[in-house]
Amino acid sequence: MNIGLIGLGKMGYNLALNMVDHKYSVTAFDINESAVKEISHKNVTGVNTIEDLVKNLPTPRVIWLMVPAGEVTENVLREVKKYVETGDIIIDGGNSHYKDSKRRGLDLEELGVFYLDVGTSGGVDGARNGACMMIGGNKEIFDTVEELFKDLCVENGYTYAGVSGSGHFLKMVHNGIEYGMMQSIAEGFELLEKSEYDFDNEGVAKVWNNGSVIRSWLMELTQNAFSKDPKLEGIKGVMHSSGEGKWTLETALDLQTAMPVTALSLMMRYRSLDEDTFSGKVVASLRNEFGGHSVESK
Amino acid sequence: MNIGLIGLGKMGYNLALNMVDHKYSVTAFDINESAVKEISHKNVTGVNTIEDLVKNLPTPRVIWLMVPAGEVTENVLREVKKYVETGDIIIDGGNSHYKDSKRRGLDLEELGVFYLDVGTSGGVDGARNGACMMIGGNKEIFDTVEELFKDLCVENGYTYAGVSGSGHFLKMVHNGIEYGMMQSIAEGFELLEKSEYDFDNEGVAKVWNNGSVIRSWLMELTQNAFSKDPKLEGIKGVMHSSGEGKWTLETALDLQTAMPVTALSLMMRYRSLDEDTFSGKVVASLRNEFGGHSVESK
Repeated sequence: MNIGLIGLGKMGYNLALNMVDHKYSVTAFDINESAVKEISHKNVTGVNTIEDLVKNLPTPRVIWLMVPAGEVTENVLREVKKYVETGDIIIDGGNSHYKDSKRRGLDLEELGVFYLDVGTSGGVDGARNGACMMIGGNKEIFDTVEELFKDLCVENGYTYAGVSGSGHFLKMVHNGIEYGMMQSIAEGFELLEKSEYDFDNEGVAKVWNNGSVIRSWLMELTQNAFSKDPKLEGIKGVMHSSGEGKWTLETALDLQTAMPVTALSLMMRYRSLDEDTFSGKVVASLRNEFGGHSVESK
Repeated sequence: MNIGLIGLGKMGYNLALNMVDHKYSVTAFDINESAVKEISHKNVTGVNTIEDLVKNLPTPRVIWLMVPAGEVTENVLREVKKYVETGDIIIDGGNSHYKDSKRRGLDLEELGVFYLDVGTSGGVDGARNGACMMIGGNKEIFDTVEELFKDLCVENGYTYAGVSGSGHFLKMVHNGIEYGMMQSIAEGFELLEKSEYDFDNEGVAKVWNNGSVIRSWLMELTQNAFSKDPKLEGIKGVMHSSGEGKWTLETALDLQTAMPVTALSLMMRYRSLDEDTFSGKVVASLRNEFGGHSVESK
């Protein structure tokens, strides 16, 4: 099968190598010409325009997008749409918002072009050696390219999620769960650090990974992190986020769904971005106003 | 090695069989005489009093308690203390509060008796086939019986946690993390259920267990549960708790440690115990008072 791959970032680049391993004929484009050049040495046909990419592929084409969600995906799709033909298949393997994917699916359907929204998990290593994918869109079209997902994923690591948007919806919720699991693990280690005991964090994570109820890939990553820096002294506890946790919460609000743990996981990330808080100053001031409790001066 | 085992509940009974598998000579007691009778047919010496159990063992004795935390453990220990001698080792493999374990460790030390507090994870299957254990107490004593933990646990499934109380402290925090991880997973599936899509919950849990970031034993149990009842229609969403989540929170309060996700996981369990809430009535009344918003009559 021939694949056109747009986007050679960390995920796309490794996915291309994964495709080549599985004997796919890959044509790749990225705005970063050096990435195109580099991948050209690895049995991938590098091209310098989206037009060239589309024209290079036999019909019906399979075009895989692995570019940042939002504006970039929108612009790339606009360009791709100029050249694709009835029956072509566009796969969005990025982290698009499910509502965008739903809209794009309907929009492309009008052109007779099929659109699969694919939530991808497993990180860079997954992209290279076997990912986890949740696929939304037309079921018959999924069936025609199912082999591709089977090849790129670990065993049992892909699923047809349902109609357009459902793949990215699943991936979004996956990330919401990830936020909560990470915060849960983190709070546990926070309490260990504040306790009267002198725990070996790496040893604790290790024993919890062997036979305990909370064994998990995230706990394995926790063990890895502590093996490199037992007290994490080299970094700050600033927790950035890429937006999928926020989308999960926004969706929870839209659907009037109580997700307090997911919400607090996100809020704790935001809290970590500020060294001090205005809300803290307000509470300190109020305690001072009504009770004369001391405040800490700046 | 000879072991005296007190407590033949689900955990103790399976631990006894696990010990027998590993060629330990086990003498067992339980107030439930039929459990004693039953285990006597499985290469375990059943006895009907704690006195008999202690007197049956060669010195220095190793006595393993696997009984409910709190009152029962306290009473059993009081009885055991009557008969043990200097150099004997008592292992509490139950879910005791770490402060109790600390106190008991000091208390027994005065008698020259050693006390190891052992947090056990992995459930009934773990007790039978390989558990996960976190062990607190005297390090030299731990060393003398380390082989026992090695035999009863999965590979790398035990750790020396530190001084008295630290084993049960670790187990308590483990359970706190468990509450948060379970609630995170649960909130994700709640959102899937409320979405516009018709997800196959078992299939979703399955794909998340293969290659995704949130793969975990708890997600495997989620998959199992959905395989038996795809929409969990046979049960109510009432979430009981055994107390370790509450202890984790109480400890967080004592140590002034922010654990919002762990806290909310516990609060959501409490919320689930009530069909309706008084707080809900209060808020509904207030909305009615100031804005004339309608209330739902009983």
